Amino acid sequence: MILSETIRDVKDFPKKGIIYKDITTLLNKKQAFKKAVDAMVKQLKGKKIDYILAAESRGFIFGGALAYSLGCGFVPIRKPGKLPAKTYKASYALEYGKDSMEIHRDAFPPKSRVLILDDLLATGGTADALLKLAHKLQAEIVAVMFLVELTFLKGKDKLKKYPVYSLIKY
Amino acid sequence: MILSETIRDVKDFPKKGIIYKDITTLLNKKQAFKKAVDAMVKQLKGKKIDYILAAESRGFIFGGALAYSLGCGFVPIRKPGKLPAKTYKASYALEYGKDSMEIHRDAFPPKSRVLILDDLLATGGTADALLKLAHKLQAEIVAVMFLVELTFLKGKDKLKKYPVYSLIKY
Repeated sequence: MILSETIRDVKDFPKKGIIYKDITTLLNKKQAFKKAVDAMVKQLKGKKIDYILAAESRGFIFGGALAYSLGCGFVPIRKPGKLPAKTYKASYALEYGKDSMEIHRDAFPPKSRVLILDDLLATGGTADALLKLAHKLQAEIVAVMFLVELTFLKGKDKLKKYPVYSLIKY
Repeated sequence: MILSETIRDVKDFPKKGIIYKDITTLLNKKQAFKKAVDAMVKQLKGKKIDYILAAESRGFIFGGALAYSLGCGFVPIRKPGKLPAKTYKASYALEYGKDSMEIHRDAFPPKSRVLILDDLLATGGTADALLKLAHKLQAEIVAVMFLVELTFLKGKDKLKKYPVYSLIKY
């Protein structure tokens, strides 16, 4: 099974002219989902990781699986107003305008070794926000991981300081 | 380690007078997260499950871990407008007003054996929507599972037709 072949293109989503990479057709195939998580685990073999920091919402799916498989803590990075205790906020650029993400201030202790995880690396905006939040809590970034990377958008250029892994490249 | 003791109360969230059960303090403790997932897996032992249907967003965390651990497909149930292909929609009652959730029409074939999963059973509104969507796709419901159940809200009364498991009861 070739993982990239289980992802489908949906035309004109979320708006006209965009071809959306729909990972739900990978997720619902048990062999594909298992293969993807196993490949992520393999990439991280031997690296000591204390916490998986994953982005709402799709990052949570692989984040939960990885945290369980690796035996790490799971830290959700959420849209503003969703986390109940005190948070830090980081904003990031969208194609038009801005958005932001939050982390609980007490999510993990300083010097923790963390993996940053999201489903998709496009322009790198979300990853940038995730890294800002991890640094606010004085994390040591072990790696930044994605299921899918859209290489033509050059998001990786913004992450040059870190090891970046992506399972599927377009 | 007692799982319920790893969940913290946050007062006045999301609004004054509500005591919010914050599971992020369970998630970020690796032993607690592992223990919770293992307990879910144990409950489901011997039951054939094809797909985990989990609710956005917090349901995705345990959904990903369970799908990986049990070797099932993962099907995200999302807020309106998030899923890119054709969907069914089900609405459910909130304290004031209504909300709704969507599933991809082609998420799984008829007669599939599914587990419905969310982090919290409160009044049972979300669970009701999840069940409606599963039935739209002619699923066989194996069980309905929650990390936390707020028993005083009697959400379980709405789910009498199904086996319901909740790990932590308040």
